[in-house]
Amino acid sequence: MCQLLALNCKNPTDATFSFSGFTQRAGITDHHADGWGIAFFEGSDQDRGLRHFIDHLPASQSPVAELLRRYPIKSRNILAHIRKATQGDVLLENCHPFVRELWGRYWVFAHNGNLADYHPKLHGVYRPVGDTDSERAFCWIMQELAKSHASVPSVHELTLTLRELVPTIARFGNFNFLLSNGQALWTHASNQLCYLERKHPFTSARLRDQDVRIDFADHTTPDDRVAVVVTAPLTVDEAWITFAPGELATFVDGERVY
Amino acid sequence: MCQLLALNCKNPTDATFSFSGFTQRAGITDHHADGWGIAFFEGSDQDRGLRHFIDHLPASQSPVAELLRRYPIKSRNILAHIRKATQGDVLLENCHPFVRELWGRYWVFAHNGNLADYHPKLHGVYRPVGDTDSERAFCWIMQELAKSHASVPSVHELTLTLRELVPTIARFGNFNFLLSNGQALWTHASNQLCYLERKHPFTSARLRDQDVRIDFADHTTPDDRVAVVVTAPLTVDEAWITFAPGELATFVDGERVY
Repeated sequence: MCQLLALNCKNPTDATFSFSGFTQRAGITDHHADGWGIAFFEGSDQDRGLRHFIDHLPASQSPVAELLRRYPIKSRNILAHIRKATQGDVLLENCHPFVRELWGRYWVFAHNGNLADYHPKLHGVYRPVGDTDSERAFCWIMQELAKSHASVPSVHELTLTLRELVPTIARFGNFNFLLSNGQALWTHASNQLCYLERKHPFTSARLRDQDVRIDFADHTTPDDRVAVVVTAPLTVDEAWITFAPGELATFVDGERVY
Repeated sequence: MCQLLALNCKNPTDATFSFSGFTQRAGITDHHADGWGIAFFEGSDQDRGLRHFIDHLPASQSPVAELLRRYPIKSRNILAHIRKATQGDVLLENCHPFVRELWGRYWVFAHNGNLADYHPKLHGVYRPVGDTDSERAFCWIMQELAKSHASVPSVHELTLTLRELVPTIARFGNFNFLLSNGQALWTHASNQLCYLERKHPFTSARLRDQDVRIDFADHTTPDDRVAVVVTAPLTVDEAWITFAPGELATFVDGERVY
């Protein structure tokens, strides 16, 4: 199994605090050491650009991960993954998150779980590069979204389409995932995913995996709002909400919508 | 105008020496300071995996570029770009190299030049995310390759297809480019691109843009072979060969083929 982390923010926010705690689970506080990855949407006001970092080294040892724990990259949508291989070898091409382009936007996907004997019919242009169940699921979602809409639809329409598509994959096994195109964050929980929303008045929090405390009030303005989605709570003193099995959620501007 | 750098190698090789000299041109020895990017194919024996780093900061100042000048990532196909914006703002989504997936392989493209009034008919699934002539040209090449072959063809067949496609773009302006899918490096020169092949017996060389000398014999085995393609010679004491206008070249295992 793997672990997932995502931030959806009203204003560009850096993930150094969360990513630092999260990557301790890649060999120090937990055993998810078969590669890692993180993607940051940024660029113009529309967040069309994407930085994508992956590495087959454990995130607790990777020099690139070490840089990202120190270097604050501000983004409204950040998706990260630490891998414990189930299907597919420990190779760069099997590291999440995966990226594809659709309708002139990049799409980013990361998965935690295991889809048994999942081999969807991929007749479109989206083909897996590696050999994981996760990338096959992502390619199938991209293929079906491309068939469902001629150009980029509203976040609400995309949510409705995903509500139709996701259950057909989730019956193959645990399908906890993160998906974003820079406009919204979609998450799905099968058995293990939780979230919280941080907003004014901000409090302080201590990481569960590292002896680090932060007072968010020192790093925010009253206008800020951040939703954090993660496999297991990142902090010990905040109220994390566990998703129900089968729950598909949409986050925009740091809060859950619909 | 921008500058291009690529390495095609028989055995996985790091680009720290070349990348270090090259990125001096992003604000120190030259003025290509509107963003940069680099991509490294690696992963399994088949080089299907891809690391892709882009940044809108000047490569001479970017913390990510600074890491890559120090951290040796070994790869058989490396493509880099420093940008001097002509079309498209200084934004992350306009940084080269661009990446798309086709036939279950990642494809990487970087361009130097300017294509005037180039707006190809993009009726397939490959759409530009940013607003550069370069990304439009890449999307058109991907679309036409996808139409020409049902699955990944041989390097020789791909070369023949590219020889048909490229002139239809090159008549719009200067179209110096680098393209790779991890199996080969294709380059095209309109007005400014040169290359060399380093092989046994290896000699030493000094960077043109930085007071750094390297003796390649200290870092290689007799079995190694590396082709370097760059906009302007990287070293002062090696014999760089300038491509003729309109020349499309293919490199495999560190040497020019066909």
